Amino acid sequence: MKNKTVSSIGEFRLIEIIKHKFAKFNYNKNVIAGIGDDCFCFNTGKNTICITKDMLIEDVHFKKDWITAKNLGQKAIEVNVSDIAAMGNVAPTYAFIGLGIPANTSKKFIIDLVNGFKTICNKYKMTVAGGDMVKANKITISVTVVGITKNKIVKRNEAKKGDLIGVTNTFGDARAGIALLYKHGVKYKYSQEERSLIIKQNNPNARLNEAHKIAKYLTSLTDTSDGLYISIELLTKNFNLGANIYTNKIPLSKNLKKVFRDENKCLKFALFGGEDYELIFTVPKSKAKIVQKFVPQVTYIGEINSSKKIRYFYNDKQQKIKYLGFKHF
Amino acid sequence: MKNKTVSSIGEFRLIEIIKHKFAKFNYNKNVIAGIGDDCFCFNTGKNTICITKDMLIEDVHFKKDWITAKNLGQKAIEVNVSDIAAMGNVAPTYAFIGLGIPANTSKKFIIDLVNGFKTICNKYKMTVAGGDMVKANKITISVTVVGITKNKIVKRNEAKKGDLIGVTNTFGDARAGIALLYKHGVKYKYSQEERSLIIKQNNPNARLNEAHKIAKYLTSLTDTSDGLYISIELLTKNFNLGANIYTNKIPLSKNLKKVFRDENKCLKFALFGGEDYELIFTVPKSKAKIVQKFVPQVTYIGEINSSKKIRYFYNDKQQKIKYLGFKHF
Repeated sequence: MKNKTVSSIGEFRLIEIIKHKFAKFNYNKNVIAGIGDDCFCFNTGKNTICITKDMLIEDVHFKKDWITAKNLGQKAIEVNVSDIAAMGNVAPTYAFIGLGIPANTSKKFIIDLVNGFKTICNKYKMTVAGGDMVKANKITISVTVVGITKNKIVKRNEAKKGDLIGVTNTFGDARAGIALLYKHGVKYKYSQEERSLIIKQNNPNARLNEAHKIAKYLTSLTDTSDGLYISIELLTKNFNLGANIYTNKIPLSKNLKKVFRDENKCLKFALFGGEDYELIFTVPKSKAKIVQKFVPQVTYIGEINSSKKIRYFYNDKQQKIKYLGFKHF
Repeated sequence: MKNKTVSSIGEFRLIEIIKHKFAKFNYNKNVIAGIGDDCFCFNTGKNTICITKDMLIEDVHFKKDWITAKNLGQKAIEVNVSDIAAMGNVAPTYAFIGLGIPANTSKKFIIDLVNGFKTICNKYKMTVAGGDMVKANKITISVTVVGITKNKIVKRNEAKKGDLIGVTNTFGDARAGIALLYKHGVKYKYSQEERSLIIKQNNPNARLNEAHKIAKYLTSLTDTSDGLYISIELLTKNFNLGANIYTNKIPLSKNLKKVFRDENKCLKFALFGGEDYELIFTVPKSKAKIVQKFVPQVTYIGEINSSKKIRYFYNDKQQKIKYLGFKHF
């Protein structure tokens, strides 16, 4: 078993190995968040700079037939802004765009893609400040967004025992949208509800405004790009904490429940599907109401304890939940 | 001809189109260099932050059989540090590493790759501060390096009429190394001179120390990653300038001349080959000597004029030189 491959080790294990290799590393006192958080953040003068990068690769993260070039460009920026939102009250300010493009890509596709970048950069008043274009055999989009703040950032690892666990909006739609595309393809005549799920997959909105409104009350924060299950682990794992999660409280959209009637299936999409780009956070009980006042779309789905375990309950009855998530490898 | 593809338009033309689309864009007064320079640079407080990103894609920028995983990791960092050096006296401080990895990649390959990253980050005292790992069908390495400085950066577009054009070290070796690998593969018994050319391709050194020593004397600066011909264009094009270049002064290594005896061929490698990661700069005549005092490996190969044309001369006889470079598409 000496010549193990990535697929036999698993992505998370491999990231652990890499982190470990980098841990004994040159350290810089200005770094305030790094590997393992949504952004890399460092202090410079009175500002904190937060940098995120995400790669979208054709046939891994998207299929060219299933999303328009414009939506793809929009999504590539939104998912990075979502990482900025996950640091709290930080302004996304600059975007860099690296493109890997196959030689047979049409000019129209690229113009539409760039229009997508532009639409979302304008929406957040970001400057597109640089980039790189190289040949590739699959469309590869590597976006870096730089955020700037004078505020304290909200990290992943500072939840406290007794804090409530809150989320924005609903979960599972984006994964359900992909399930529909897998089943019926793009040419199928979808109902309005089904289309809304596909739109959630192809056209996500980062929760930046929400993060800005509530950041100062929160003890920890991340986005839910890898699904609720993984996000809950990220807020508790390695910090001697645990959590009780009440799955009956996980918010599901009307459209999701109408299209996929089986609640169990909807919950699986919510827990393991990912790509919802919502926020999940912890907040002291005393601040829970004011957070909901600023962002009415907040639901509390559980609480932090010191059990070192994540326990799931459905209407107070404990549930065994096994990880079924999307793995990269 | 409505449905043009990238290969029919050409990479440089496409970048022009994209730049144009972004030009009418949200502008931020703190941005001091952007698309078209080696780094994106912005002011924050008393510091200037310079950010660069480069993507290396398997079978486009490297072949897995032709370079060790460790050298690949080293090169991925060096080429980004070269972009930081191209902004002058800037300290590369943080690196982010985005990896796209095929599922059948061996653990050993990844560990070696990461060791390569680590070696060069240590060399420059950089902190590896974050990253991302995703599945891909080809190895894709997207590195972002953040540089910080309190000094004035040296841009590409501020050469002055009468300035001398200087370069560091020699040109053409890296491209010659690739030519050898194409011809003989990896298992061939190469001479010492041939091996030195392959090493220049696989194990480049960014000229950071050199940039730090001479930045304050220079009027413009870039690195030569795309070959001398393109670099000379970058320093003069769009600025109402021109240049005379003396090709007989272009420095060629002893090894290159020994392996490829035809001087014309060596000059083609130098002008169009790229991947040398040397510096090219302009400097007022009055500062030319002090620059050579600090960096004895500087050669002056031409001078800036206002002709709006780049003219090539070999021993004072004008030469017609047609672009033969490596195109991405």
